[in-house]
Amino acid sequence: MNLEAQWIVGFVDGEGCFHIAINSNQEMKLGVQVLAEFVVVQHESDRQILEALKAFWGCGVVRKNNKDCLCYRVRDLEQLKTRIVPFFEKHKLKTRKRIDFDTFRDVIALMDQQAHLTLEGVEKINQIRKTMNRKGISKIESSSS
Amino acid sequence: MNLEAQWIVGFVDGEGCFHIAINSNQEMKLGVQVLAEFVVVQHESDRQILEALKAFWGCGVVRKNNKDCLCYRVRDLEQLKTRIVPFFEKHKLKTRKRIDFDTFRDVIALMDQQAHLTLEGVEKINQIRKTMNRKGISKIESSSS
Repeated sequence: MNLEAQWIVGFVDGEGCFHIAINSNQEMKLGVQVLAEFVVVQHESDRQILEALKAFWGCGVVRKNNKDCLCYRVRDLEQLKTRIVPFFEKHKLKTRKRIDFDTFRDVIALMDQQAHLTLEGVEKINQIRKTMNRKGISKIESSSS
Repeated sequence: MNLEAQWIVGFVDGEGCFHIAINSNQEMKLGVQVLAEFVVVQHESDRQILEALKAFWGCGVVRKNNKDCLCYRVRDLEQLKTRIVPFFEKHKLKTRKRIDFDTFRDVIALMDQQAHLTLEGVEKINQIRKTMNRKGISKIESSSS
């Protein structure tokens, strides 16, 4: 299945999520871990769509999400920075999800500067991510504050 | 806001619904009414997207859907037949929603032949619509059987 860029933008405007989570993780020096992920969830009968997205960007994984659903997910910082972010910089989202993407992009830039490895950086990321919509922060299990 | 066809296809693959409902209506000769509608629901903050869809197809209405949501809706048979159906015939959906669209298109063709005004026609439409996915028939309040 070949996907056109504008189809992907429309589909992600509907179904995509840009998440920034700050989770407790005692294995980390700061006791927290910043997690950035781009996710698209679909019913398992539409696996081919998620596989086509994976093939399009050449990165990410297709995994079980919950009972009947699968997700396409990209968590690798380098792949987010070099593949996902540039795509949505070039092909602008049209819904309010674009605001979430802009925030996501800013956090990726901070993480690329290693900000998520310092207390000040995590606090800054935490403040920025609070501006994301409820859907965008729904997966956050605990914050650094 | 100008929308490209492929963006619309991707967005409808994610957010669009093709409904066929058979509702009780004692004002109708048969006591039931067949209702076909194409719907896209969005949060009210994305009203501009729904208005852009309305402008693109030059038909339909943008209405309140529930608490925080609006919908773009086309119910007029002639508009469904001449604007919505031909668009998705030309620009194919990529998810399993395409199967629902195919069923929807078949029902529109039957309604265009006045099938929904005869008992046999309503029964036929009822059988066809049962093949649509759960989401597609969720709004059906009562059937003719």
